[in-house]
Amino acid sequence: MKRRLTSFLSKIQILSQFDASLEKLAQRKEDSIVNSIVEYIQKHQSSFIEELKEFLRIPSISASKAHREDCRRAAQWLMARFQSMGFENSLHETAGNPVVLAQYKAGEGKPTLLIYGHYDVQPADPEDLWLTPPFEPSIQYGKIFARGATDDKGQIYTHIKAAEAHLKIRGSLPVNLIFLIEGEEEIASNNLEKFIRENKDKLRADAAVISDGSQFALDAPAICYGLRGICVEEIRVEGAGWDLHSGSFGGATPNPLNEMCAIVAKLKDAKGKITIPGFYDDVAPLEPWEKKAFAELPWDDESFCCELKLPGLFGEEGYSTIERKWARPTLDVNGIFGGYEGEGSKTIIPAWGGAKITMRLVPHQNPKKISALFREYVQEIAPPHIRILFAPHSGCGPVAFPRSAPFMAEAENAIQNAFGKPPVFIREGGSIPIVLTMKEELGLHTLLLGWGQPDDGAHSPNERFHLQDFERGIAASAWLMELCGKK
Amino acid sequence: MKRRLTSFLSKIQILSQFDASLEKLAQRKEDSIVNSIVEYIQKHQSSFIEELKEFLRIPSISASKAHREDCRRAAQWLMARFQSMGFENSLHETAGNPVVLAQYKAGEGKPTLLIYGHYDVQPADPEDLWLTPPFEPSIQYGKIFARGATDDKGQIYTHIKAAEAHLKIRGSLPVNLIFLIEGEEEIASNNLEKFIRENKDKLRADAAVISDGSQFALDAPAICYGLRGICVEEIRVEGAGWDLHSGSFGGATPNPLNEMCAIVAKLKDAKGKITIPGFYDDVAPLEPWEKKAFAELPWDDESFCCELKLPGLFGEEGYSTIERKWARPTLDVNGIFGGYEGEGSKTIIPAWGGAKITMRLVPHQNPKKISALFREYVQEIAPPHIRILFAPHSGCGPVAFPRSAPFMAEAENAIQNAFGKPPVFIREGGSIPIVLTMKEELGLHTLLLGWGQPDDGAHSPNERFHLQDFERGIAASAWLMELCGKK
Repeated sequence: MKRRLTSFLSKIQILSQFDASLEKLAQRKEDSIVNSIVEYIQKHQSSFIEELKEFLRIPSISASKAHREDCRRAAQWLMARFQSMGFENSLHETAGNPVVLAQYKAGEGKPTLLIYGHYDVQPADPEDLWLTPPFEPSIQYGKIFARGATDDKGQIYTHIKAAEAHLKIRGSLPVNLIFLIEGEEEIASNNLEKFIRENKDKLRADAAVISDGSQFALDAPAICYGLRGICVEEIRVEGAGWDLHSGSFGGATPNPLNEMCAIVAKLKDAKGKITIPGFYDDVAPLEPWEKKAFAELPWDDESFCCELKLPGLFGEEGYSTIERKWARPTLDVNGIFGGYEGEGSKTIIPAWGGAKITMRLVPHQNPKKISALFREYVQEIAPPHIRILFAPHSGCGPVAFPRSAPFMAEAENAIQNAFGKPPVFIREGGSIPIVLTMKEELGLHTLLLGWGQPDDGAHSPNERFHLQDFERGIAASAWLMELCGKK
Repeated sequence: MKRRLTSFLSKIQILSQFDASLEKLAQRKEDSIVNSIVEYIQKHQSSFIEELKEFLRIPSISASKAHREDCRRAAQWLMARFQSMGFENSLHETAGNPVVLAQYKAGEGKPTLLIYGHYDVQPADPEDLWLTPPFEPSIQYGKIFARGATDDKGQIYTHIKAAEAHLKIRGSLPVNLIFLIEGEEEIASNNLEKFIRENKDKLRADAAVISDGSQFALDAPAICYGLRGICVEEIRVEGAGWDLHSGSFGGATPNPLNEMCAIVAKLKDAKGKITIPGFYDDVAPLEPWEKKAFAELPWDDESFCCELKLPGLFGEEGYSTIERKWARPTLDVNGIFGGYEGEGSKTIIPAWGGAKITMRLVPHQNPKKISALFREYVQEIAPPHIRILFAPHSGCGPVAFPRSAPFMAEAENAIQNAFGKPPVFIREGGSIPIVLTMKEELGLHTLLLGWGQPDDGAHSPNERFHLQDFERGIAASAWLMELCGKK
């Protein structure tokens, strides 16, 4: 009986050894496929870059009505890419620029990733500060320079090329993919929420993926678990019905520009604190683990200051630079205008002036509530001898995800495999309105996997994207599809 | 003896009666000449207006380099007018726009009037607020609408037509005339002082005459005895070396636009007082007779406010509107700019912003001293995390003339004759740099005889000149030449 049992057990052992080697064999085959995919990605870099250049040449500036047709061209360019890869794709009209939706069904039971990006870009001005024209991509120092290079054309394209690599080598995809690429991210994604609400069935997924940010630093890839929100305001301050001669009327009539400056100046105090009553009421304080983690990140204020050619740093008293950038709300004038801006002088009291102001918000501030507080305060501090008008408000709420969110671990491993080191966990100061919408409307957590660098110059002249990050981004995306498919 | 004496006396009486009637005859002849001159002026209004339209069509904007040739065209247009009237004339090159000098010698022993004006105009922007194109003169409601209509093309042209009327009717002029017409008044007359210093011999005169301002009100012609000076500044506030993403960097980097607003806000207090230390040190207080005279002028704050479509009046506490306009210094932002000014929003922390600021000065403030005080204070209040740059300063001092100045009485009578009522004595809030230069370099007092109206819209959209003022201005100028010639 004992021998029989031994023999039986040894048979099981042999069988299980056999199973193990079968598994190993499968694993080796899988490994060899992934290796081939990565090889394919490496081998085709130069053609990928040429394609990206095509994309970057389209001046798809969403803020300017004059570029409406260019935005459509960018959407159509993407449609053609998906078409050639065998995706089901469709162009969806909105009240603004169209949304590109492209889908690949790998099979029932496989997880689904919803990859979001945007084909619109920021305006290129001030154009005279660009060393090469913003819409004529050029490669220098291992980087590709163009408006949209890192934000977001270059980054969204990494996922498209990762899918292509899987399809070329494996003939199929390990996960179901939905690409959702919009054209109004740079103007607050005002039409996307409606689109998502009306197309929930087409957007069912297990997690969302966005690459529209940056790594923590060179050779410090990151996963971002929190974003600031934004509250967008614009004030117009009016005095007389028309510009007045500053000699004949100066001293006796209010000057809207002086008054506008006084109003803006009263929005923050000398310690960098925003003075709008109630502004900080809903701000979640930093968790102790976050304060510790942020403090442990490699950071040097002096180099930061020097790199940006700043005369000095300035921010809210009592917080570190990283805390100020990621986890504290802000109030910034993005543009100011009024009166004579040309050469020389024009001695007028201008009829009006305007200021574009955005406030970055952190959990759990609400943009609509902040907008109301802002307007109430501005009205309160505005003197009776001027008129204040407000442009329509837009905004989006802040967001933060737990470390246990779906596919967070797979993203960590994918980055480890592609970049050769584990990611750090960070928050970001920018806003990606879609992240909140996907959470609220689709119940999705988002993997925020920025492949760019903090100094890529997003929104600035000479925007750029490291070609190495472009390649590693494609590889990391390919790995992510691979690892999620195994779960 | 007695009879002889009686007879002698009666002869003298007869002779003196004869002299008196000769004088009367001469007077009648003179009167009939003046009447003919005035008739000539009235009869030729429509052709004078057509000529003025030609002049107004030239967009001689001195603030813009793009209009350099137009300025020259305006100067040449004037040269042709003087040529046809038999004046000795010459075009003098300067570092900027040329100066037109035209001279008519009526004879030794006759007094000389130096008539100054300018052929340059303010920029026309904001052009979309013009009801008719700024350089296509149009006549409506008895006014001629065009940039430069009242400031100063229409007004300088009254003196040219007055001289022409004398020449046509009398065949000569009762006074020597020198016309000095420059092309840089709207940009602080930077090259005129040098020209005057270098051409003193050509500019010898007994008094200067300028019509580049306005009457006190409709049917209230005025002689202006004081002008404010001006100190022109422009600051540039710099932060980072380029525009930064307001999400990624907001909160941790200084914002030059917020800081610029804070600086501008600190230049004046809530009571309209300028806060620059030492700013008021040299200000001459209003004389009691001036305070009284100003208070007696017809003035209604409510109508003033309403006419300008102002939500309310605002100025230095403790002074009336007229005092604030004429006799108190000011600080006004004439233009402000920085960051994104286009449609929609652009979420940046701009690299820099700028503000054009002018201060109107009163006796005995000095523009150079005020400039130094301004800069010192701005530097002092600017925080260390931004850079401040100053554009080159320009300016001119304030001025005031006594009621006993040469030909002041003749000017009073000329206005009485042409307008049918005596002028009021006023000051003006604007600056005419040449007035100070002519006083300092040529020892001349200036008769400031504005034919315009305070609401003519000088420097504003829809600038205009009443045709009635154009005609009465020509007649008053003709009378002035007449009366000065008799002295």
